[in-house]
Parts: sequence; C-alpha cells; structure tokens
Amino acid sequence: MVETKVFPIEHLREFSTRVFQHFGVPDEDAALAADVLAVSDLRGIDSHGVGRLHTYFDMLELGRINPTPDIKIVRESPSTATVDGDNGLGLVVGPRANEIAMDKAEQVGTGWVSVANTNHYGIAGWYVLEALKRDLIGWSMTNTTKLVQPLWGGERRLGTNPISIAFPGMEEPPIVIDMASSAVAYGKIEIAKRRGEPIPSGWAIDAAGNDTQDPQAMIDGGALSPLGSFREMGGHKGYCLAAMVDVLCCVLSGANWGPWAPPFALRQEIPERSVGKGIGHFFGAMSIEAFLEVDEFKRQIDDWIRTMRATKPQPGTPGVVIPGDPEREAEQVRAEQGIPLVMPLVEELRDISQRTGIPFD
Amino acid sequence: MVETKVFPIEHLREFSTRVFQHFGVPDEDAALAADVLAVSDLRGIDSHGVGRLHTYFDMLELGRINPTPDIKIVRESPSTATVDGDNGLGLVVGPRANEIAMDKAEQVGTGWVSVANTNHYGIAGWYVLEALKRDLIGWSMTNTTKLVQPLWGGERRLGTNPISIAFPGMEEPPIVIDMASSAVAYGKIEIAKRRGEPIPSGWAIDAAGNDTQDPQAMIDGGALSPLGSFREMGGHKGYCLAAMVDVLCCVLSGANWGPWAPPFALRQEIPERSVGKGIGHFFGAMSIEAFLEVDEFKRQIDDWIRTMRATKPQPGTPGVVIPGDPEREAEQVRAEQGIPLVMPLVEELRDISQRTGIPFD
Repeated sequence: MVETKVFPIEHLREFSTRVFQHFGVPDEDAALAADVLAVSDLRGIDSHGVGRLHTYFDMLELGRINPTPDIKIVRESPSTATVDGDNGLGLVVGPRANEIAMDKAEQVGTGWVSVANTNHYGIAGWYVLEALKRDLIGWSMTNTTKLVQPLWGGERRLGTNPISIAFPGMEEPPIVIDMASSAVAYGKIEIAKRRGEPIPSGWAIDAAGNDTQDPQAMIDGGALSPLGSFREMGGHKGYCLAAMVDVLCCVLSGANWGPWAPPFALRQEIPERSVGKGIGHFFGAMSIEAFLEVDEFKRQIDDWIRTMRATKPQPGTPGVVIPGDPEREAEQVRAEQGIPLVMPLVEELRDISQRTGIPFD
Repeated sequence: MVETKVFPIEHLREFSTRVFQHFGVPDEDAALAADVLAVSDLRGIDSHGVGRLHTYFDMLELGRINPTPDIKIVRESPSTATVDGDNGLGLVVGPRANEIAMDKAEQVGTGWVSVANTNHYGIAGWYVLEALKRDLIGWSMTNTTKLVQPLWGGERRLGTNPISIAFPGMEEPPIVIDMASSAVAYGKIEIAKRRGEPIPSGWAIDAAGNDTQDPQAMIDGGALSPLGSFREMGGHKGYCLAAMVDVLCCVLSGANWGPWAPPFALRQEIPERSVGKGIGHFFGAMSIEAFLEVDEFKRQIDDWIRTMRATKPQPGTPGVVIPGDPEREAEQVRAEQGIPLVMPLVEELRDISQRTGIPFD
C-alpha cells in the first residue's frame, strides 16, 4: 500500500495557478495551464497533472520556457493555420492553438492547426474535451521527447506521440479516445521497478536493443516498444502511428521531430541536432453540423455505445468498455473525494512552496 | 511451394475493366475500378486485387451493387462534404469522393469527405497515393464487415477498419502508411490454416471468446483481435482506432457502423439490423502549401526518412523500414515481372471468363 495524502482539486488548481503567476505568466494563462493539470488529476491520469508541476517549475526558473509568449499565426488558409508558440508553456500555447482550430471549424466546417516552438502540453484529451463543449469533433496530437523504438530499431527515436479524438453522445457520455502510440506508458515501467516486478515481454527493449523484462534495463538506455510490440503482432502499426503524429505535429509546423525533440525534464539529454523550433502539436476540429444534423449524430453515437456495451463479454473480463469510461468514472470519484497524491509528490510540491513562498499545506 | 501462373499487369487490368463494363459500368468508371485493383496487385497486396474480382462479379450479377450510381453531395461546407454513393462500387464511389476532398484542399487548405451508401473500396492506400500526385497529404479510412472483437468483447463487432495516410518526400520516396486496426489481416489466418500451422496467441479468439491458436476456431465464429491484442499489451488502443474509423466513416455519413455493416461477400451473414445506408468511407486531403513551403516540407521528410534509416538496428532484424517501402519494392518487381496468381484464383478468373465471354487466358 502506497501512502497518499488527499487534496481537494481546488486546492491543487489554486496552487498551480499561483506557481505559474510567480514566474510572470499572465493570470488568464496561469488559470488555463492550471486547468489542464487539474483535469488530468481529476481524470486519474496522475502522470500528467500536478505530478509534473515541478518540471514546469524547473523549466520556468531556468528561463527555458517563455512565461509571456507572443503566440502567432505564421501562415494561414481558411481551414488551416501554422502557429509559432514563441517557446511558451505548452499548457498555454496548446489551448490557444486549439481555439484557432475550433473557430475555423465553425467558419468553414473544419480547422487544422500545426504548432511549432512549443513545449509539453499536458494530456492530449484536454483539448478534445474543449471541442465537445462546442459540439465539435476534436483531434489532438503532440510529439514528445524520444523514448520509443521504431519497429526493428534498437534505440529511442520517437516520442510516445499520443492521439486523442472525441465524439459527443446525446444521453450517453461522449466517446473520448486518448492513447499513446507506444505499447505502454513510461509510468508503467516505473511502477514495475518500484514493485520489483518484471515487465511483460513486448513492452520494452534494453540498451542493446533486445526485448527485456527488466524495467531497469529499459530505464538505463533502453526504449519502450511501439503499440503491437513485435512485427508478428503488428508492431509496425504502432510505429506508423508514431510517425504520423511526428510529421503532422513537427514537419508540418517546423518543430523538432523524432530523436531531435528537446528534453522536457532537466535530467534528459540534449539532442545532438536541432531541425526546427521546440516540439510540435497538431489540433483538428470538425463541425458535426457540416456533415449532418447534430442531433442525428448524437442519437447514432448513443446507439453505437449501447450496441458495443451489449457485446457478449469475453470470459474472465468485465466486458466491453467505451473509450473515456475509466477517466470519467475517476473524475466522478475525485471531484467529490479529492486527489490522492503519493508522499514523494507532496514533498515536491512542498519544495516549490518553500522556494516560492506560495503556501501549499 | 504454391503453384502460381504469372500475368502481366496490363492483362489483368484489361480483364477487370471489361468485367466491370460487362455489367454496364461506364468506361471511365470501369477503368478507375480496375486501376484500384491493379495497384493493389502491383503493390503485393494480393488480398485486395483481382483476388476479389469474383466477389465484385457476384455482387454485380445479383444486382446488389449499382453499376451506374448517381453519386451526390448531400451536405457541404467549404472544407467538408457528405456524399451518398448511391450503392455504387466502392472502387468508383471512393475515387470520386476522394477527388472532392482533394479539390477542397486546393481551395480552402483542407477537404474532408464522409461517404455513405457505398461498398468495398479496395486498398486504403490507393487514395492517398492519388493525393501525393497533387502534393497533398491524403487520408483514407473505411469500415468493413464485422470481423474483429472490441477489447474484452467475445464476438465480432467491428471491421478491420484500416487507416491510410501519406507524406511526400523530395529525393526520398514518400512515407505511405496503410494499416488495418486489427492485430493481423484475415488473410494470415487463412494462410496458417492452409499450412496446418497454429497462429500466435493474440491474433484471434474462438466462438466462446477465448484466445485461440487454432486458425479454424477463428474462422468458425471466432474473431480477430484488435491491434495490441490484450489489455496489458494495448489492445484497448487497437479497439479505439477501429472505433474512430467507424464513427468518421459511418456515423458522420449515415452508413451502417459496427456489427451492422452489410456483407461484402455472398457467404457472409446479413446483419440483423440496418442503421444507415451501405458501408462508409472517410477521405481527407491537406494542402502542404497551406502550412509551409512544399519544398521545405519535402526536404524535412527526406531528413526524417534518412534519420530513421540510420537507427541502430535491433539485433536479429533487418533494421528500421520506412512505411511504404515493402509495397514500393513489390511494385518495382511486379511491374517488370508480372503478377503471380495462385491457381485457385486463376480458376476463379477463368470462371468469370466463361460466364461473361470475356477472354482471359
């Protein structure tokens, strides 16, 4: 049993907001950035919420992230924009770029925005949830620092490059897809290491490039495997998805792709080359109304969800889950009961508190 | 060793064209449909080329497919269209809808077309190769007859729902992604059966919903597994991709989604419900120029490809392959040496020849 301390989400949200403000991030931007973290904690994605606040703190303190970016559209068409994030927080640049995509969708049916010169933007899912508020189908992707082998490669060359998309229902909750293109998240390797347990074959390779069941061997210069793991099981497909995200986020915007993505955390190595500016994101928004009546779409989504739920369950499993169900269930519990933080994380936040004078505990 | 007979691609192309014409498909449409099949055979995707001509023949002969469809845009915005394919050949409806997407991309930066009331459209990759000819980034997806379990489901509920996207290079060949969202293609189950070999755990389930290594058990009422296979290995992600394709192709256009997709072949069961018209496709086209200079994009793609090729190879493998490499290599060989067809397929084509009077051999 891991010891935790529970905090109401509003407490964490306010603390994060004040930490961003401390570095000169404007009030509205600070609240936006804190919201992305808070939604992640609420939805149970602990790796991307206040668990990362100390990393943002480090980067801001070292002047590696611009607290007051001049976010600019550098190229534009009726349905597209290329955005330069001026090295701002991804938690601020991302939401602004996503808004441009949503506005365009309302004007010409769809909007597609590729973003360079930005930083880590939190959970991919936050952006598509925003689109749902406007009856739009939202898309969100980002590249990340290298951590994953391309199939048949013996080293880290691509990020975990997530893809998110969401579809609204009428009476049923929305379908919310938010998935990394790697076989598993890095956090699962860390959990296995902490527990002293082996990892399944197919999750990762070691520094020599061989499949490994030792979590430490992945951490020490190994790599995560792509979704599908091996050639025989479709590992080339996970690699293809990571490549797609890399090109849409980075090549299209002028950001650093593949192994050249800059590090997010201080402990990560600096790449030997720079082929663009910062990392990249890609946002899409589609007006449902442009394709068919919104109510008809939502009724069909309800039917789709109920049909999938009615699938004969596989023996020994709980049966079919709708994408987004686990996160929404976590949100219901955590909004009421608060967010359990492990003690090392509480210590990290206390450290920020001591160094900034912003009360935490 | 399987016995084969080799045919020049032009011979197969002409035969297919004449078979479509035989049923009253207009000349231009017949040539288009035959081209989709020919490109599949050239690229080594034997399951989707003339190997399927007899199925198209059956459907046309029974009047299940409309040879002279009135393909209509039923709803439109500057960057989108919803198309009704009037129950035409997917090999004709698909190319026409794809053209609408490409035209819109040239007008307003991107074009996105969701298509209902259509049929099997061949390889997803054909459509994105067309986009490359116009310096566009092409997207292509389709649903298919149910064959795949949603994760934790014990039966067929989704198609193999492929996703294709392509990016052009300058001196390097393009990156061409074309992947089903299932762990493997159905053809691999058939090959294992023919050879009397077991299939790997994670490819399929049997009629009771349990993972199976017996290819016949999958064929007899079992299902393919989604990409990722099991929960622990990311099987929920393959299911998410299939769901995404299903909604974009079918819910957005008004086609039959999930288990209600109509059968493509005569031996397949008729679904108990109809929730729309025919099956569905989804096409996208993005103007590269709308985002950045086309030459700059292509130079970066060349760099991306060379960087990935320079990855340290995983021991015991040929090293990293660029998506599209295997198909392009097959095309080079087959354009010169012809297409090897297995004898049962040659017999199928001879059967068509006898029944139509179109010479084949």
